[in-house]
Amino acid sequence: MKIREAAHDMKLAAPILASTTIGQRNGALKKIAKALEDHKAEIFEANKKDMDAAEKNNIAAAVKKRLKYDEGKLRDGIAGIEQLIELPDPLGKLSLNRQLDENLILKRVSVPIGVIGVIFEARPDALVQISALCIKSGNCAVLKGGKETVETNRILFKIIYDSVVKAGLPEGCLLQAELHNEIDELLTCDGDIDLLIPRGSNKFVRYIMENTKIPVMGHSSGICHIYLDKDCDMKKAIPIIVDAKIQYPAACNAVETLLVNRNIAKEALPEIAEALTGSGVKLRGTEEVSELISCEIMAEDEFDTEYTDLIISIKLVADVKEAVEHINRYSSHHTDSILTENAEAAEYFMNLVDSAGVYHNCSTRFSDGYRYGFGAEVGISTGKLHARGPVGLEGLVTYKYKLFGSGQIVGDYASGKSHFHHKDI
Amino acid sequence: MKIREAAHDMKLAAPILASTTIGQRNGALKKIAKALEDHKAEIFEANKKDMDAAEKNNIAAAVKKRLKYDEGKLRDGIAGIEQLIELPDPLGKLSLNRQLDENLILKRVSVPIGVIGVIFEARPDALVQISALCIKSGNCAVLKGGKETVETNRILFKIIYDSVVKAGLPEGCLLQAELHNEIDELLTCDGDIDLLIPRGSNKFVRYIMENTKIPVMGHSSGICHIYLDKDCDMKKAIPIIVDAKIQYPAACNAVETLLVNRNIAKEALPEIAEALTGSGVKLRGTEEVSELISCEIMAEDEFDTEYTDLIISIKLVADVKEAVEHINRYSSHHTDSILTENAEAAEYFMNLVDSAGVYHNCSTRFSDGYRYGFGAEVGISTGKLHARGPVGLEGLVTYKYKLFGSGQIVGDYASGKSHFHHKDI
Repeated sequence: MKIREAAHDMKLAAPILASTTIGQRNGALKKIAKALEDHKAEIFEANKKDMDAAEKNNIAAAVKKRLKYDEGKLRDGIAGIEQLIELPDPLGKLSLNRQLDENLILKRVSVPIGVIGVIFEARPDALVQISALCIKSGNCAVLKGGKETVETNRILFKIIYDSVVKAGLPEGCLLQAELHNEIDELLTCDGDIDLLIPRGSNKFVRYIMENTKIPVMGHSSGICHIYLDKDCDMKKAIPIIVDAKIQYPAACNAVETLLVNRNIAKEALPEIAEALTGSGVKLRGTEEVSELISCEIMAEDEFDTEYTDLIISIKLVADVKEAVEHINRYSSHHTDSILTENAEAAEYFMNLVDSAGVYHNCSTRFSDGYRYGFGAEVGISTGKLHARGPVGLEGLVTYKYKLFGSGQIVGDYASGKSHFHHKDI
Repeated sequence: MKIREAAHDMKLAAPILASTTIGQRNGALKKIAKALEDHKAEIFEANKKDMDAAEKNNIAAAVKKRLKYDEGKLRDGIAGIEQLIELPDPLGKLSLNRQLDENLILKRVSVPIGVIGVIFEARPDALVQISALCIKSGNCAVLKGGKETVETNRILFKIIYDSVVKAGLPEGCLLQAELHNEIDELLTCDGDIDLLIPRGSNKFVRYIMENTKIPVMGHSSGICHIYLDKDCDMKKAIPIIVDAKIQYPAACNAVETLLVNRNIAKEALPEIAEALTGSGVKLRGTEEVSELISCEIMAEDEFDTEYTDLIISIKLVADVKEAVEHINRYSSHHTDSILTENAEAAEYFMNLVDSAGVYHNCSTRFSDGYRYGFGAEVGISTGKLHARGPVGLEGLVTYKYKLFGSGQIVGDYASGKSHFHHKDI
């Protein structure tokens, strides 16, 4: 079936999935967890085909690590589903319960967004995690994973979909897209798909954002900063800077730019440079920085660079004010951290940096749904509307207003015959 | 100054406005209320110029009523500001306060969206209301009102802006755009403007949505439905249907389509037709409807029509299920109402209709920020993300995550040396 038609059918099925009970949705998650365990031999066999193809195509070792789906990843996936089952129902939560007048009651109730399209990188564990989040939150989903794991994705999706339908959730509530050209078809499904969540390279996410009328949640780049204040504690600072750069340099929350207070630069920079180069990090800095440590000289307009590699940009600033200005100009509004023992500087930074995550004395790498305790995440948003930062279950719901009346008309309120009294109950 | 440059400066001023205290923002609102009162003679004089121009240009009487800014509207505007002052601070609210580990505290705090562009119809009272909402919520704003009230808008804006700056809020936090071609310039300010809220005609709002990369909140059309169930109480139903159509037919929450259960159509339709035509409403219906009452025959594909006039579409359906299917297909997801005494049918409708407002036994015209008790609204959103339905202060804020650490690095958690314990505090 064509994606457009399937998405349209899904739109009609969405209110039915939205009306299921938490018992039904958790029941489906339990069935998925069991089926993954029961069919693991088939899953590993399918994954072997993907790994063989990766071998033949000379895929890089770091990427192959992501493609691999083994006993450990299966166990983590099942554990993730079990954790999700324990979380409270994100649907049906009342965020407003107000008597507008006698027998005229307004309730604002959380409901699923509806139909979500998720396009994600070649990682079979992502397919399991994203499907589970969508089911728990009552959302229909079109899933498109990376082509390098097509065999693994196909069997995983079949297991998940069969479990969901067996548990009584509506047929067609999940759909897998397999072909790359189906992405472009997906982008035209405005009216049927309520939200797109693209994950992957900067270029890919930007392509999605620029070629659809469907709202997009995610981030194209992750240009994160650390500002080293004059009142910092170097014993904390060095490990944090090194961790933020090297613990997983390809991650969007790895630091790309280090801003150093000019007053301590002469003393602090050589120590930092030694720690970073000792960990294999290449240093780039302004001319002023190059006078204090050995580094490649860079221009001001290069501070919008996301390396996703063992490279870091370094610049000196006069104070926290200049640091904040630089960050608000060049940051991708993802996560930025200040290292200082000065409470006033920290407060200024935390309040004035306009990013999804503002950190004090810790590594930017903490910006992650699992580390925040959300159980799982569908992605990280650098947009400011709806959801910001790591997006878990809460980001997959919206609300609707239910108004329960007993014959009221607006004319009576306009004429003064009736009056609102707006009492929260 | 060009709009683009001004918006860029505003982006830099936004974090400063975001950091003001509620005392400062309420202080500015108080100054505005007083200045409006003090300068009312000048305001009415400016409005007279607009009204004279409207007279010369043969503007329709209904529109002139909107352009007029008199003692009554000024009083309402000041009362609205005073009500807004009484509301709690929408900023700095904690929606998450969690210990991730010892001395590693995550807080999710409400913050302003940043820079908002509001483009609104020719109504001077809208300028006052929107400015006040933006100031209370700490947002910078570019305001563009309708050209028919240019003189009134200019003096109102001057009074508001002067009061705000005198109260100590940052210069440049509010800007008025006056020329129509500045709208197109506004649409290109992605990166500086965080959100656009367009109000006005269907065509105008759609133009904005299709010609900018800035997120847009609002609604282009308002195709609202009433479904008359077989178990309805006609004594409630007739006044509700009439109110929803005639109380303000140009409003987006006026009903456009009436769905009637086939089992009661023969009895109910003549009574409804009499009440509606008696109020000057023109009836249009399917062929089946035309066999029961006198009406203009319409085709199925015309049910996506928003009349904003004294005209209504009528169709028969088999049951609540078919009514919901019709609504989910043709509704603009604004507000839809069921009239029934049957609890089961009502529950089905309230759960399965996918609209911002789902109503039971009351008029669709209640869908409004003031009636919901929000004090004021910047608009009504038919989108599903961020804010849905009438948008008041809550829709003008987002949140950021603040993480307070004491030297933590992710490497220690990855290696198992440290562990998250995720305790809400």
